[in-house]
Amino acid sequence: MNSEVEILLVEDNPNDVKLTLHAFKQHGLANRITVVRDGEEALDFIFRTGTFAHRNQQETPKVILLDLKLPKIDGLEVLKQVKANPETKMIPIIVLTTSKVESDIIESYQLGVNSYIVKPVDFEQFVEAIRTLGMYWLLLNQPPIIK
Amino acid sequence: MNSEVEILLVEDNPNDVKLTLHAFKQHGLANRITVVRDGEEALDFIFRTGTFAHRNQQETPKVILLDLKLPKIDGLEVLKQVKANPETKMIPIIVLTTSKVESDIIESYQLGVNSYIVKPVDFEQFVEAIRTLGMYWLLLNQPPIIK
Repeated sequence: MNSEVEILLVEDNPNDVKLTLHAFKQHGLANRITVVRDGEEALDFIFRTGTFAHRNQQETPKVILLDLKLPKIDGLEVLKQVKANPETKMIPIIVLTTSKVESDIIESYQLGVNSYIVKPVDFEQFVEAIRTLGMYWLLLNQPPIIK
Repeated sequence: MNSEVEILLVEDNPNDVKLTLHAFKQHGLANRITVVRDGEEALDFIFRTGTFAHRNQQETPKVILLDLKLPKIDGLEVLKQVKANPETKMIPIIVLTTSKVESDIIESYQLGVNSYIVKPVDFEQFVEAIRTLGMYWLLLNQPPIIK
């Protein structure tokens, strides 16, 4: 898929954005991360509408890291729209959230999330989680072939 | 989910079974692996039919590692049936295969596979892949809550 954008990070909390970018950089996995701050911007990026109407389709991310509590359109709605569309459903989506709420976990899996990760509160554990996540989805997983 | 079976390995090649179990053991991740050797047995395990009619529902695996080329019923058909059923679709399925065939990759993602991994041919790389995979799905991923 010759992706230039490897990771789409959908996160509104500036501290979490900073920490995630820091963790990726520390492990040499920060090549091409695009950050969007709300659900509307995420959908615009993924479906190439609005601000992202001219995004090259070749730049489909290898993985989307999706927070659940987001301004404008929440994470579950983003997940639902992406997984309901045959053209975008193949993109791996990992929910990365502080929520351990049972209904969030169940709904995410029912909507077809690829993986659900509860953000560790501890700084070192968070950095380690991002490392494992990055190695898994950028180096080990075979991304979908999107044309 | 108080799972006793953590991993369901669906693999007919005895060498690959041996190697996978070896890799999990080496990394202390081999607690509870169940191995089934064809697609029919896999579906019986997952849907609690046939030989597995009396399996405790609490023992739903945290993750299923699924080969594609399987006797009786192939891996894509197993994937299709599990992901088409609301009661079982939440179980993470990782295709673990030698196939790099584009249609296998695309069909797996279209059917809702959680992740697709091409088995490394090199022994050390295979062991390392199993380690990363085990850490990710057994320790980092929040499994679905199945009642």
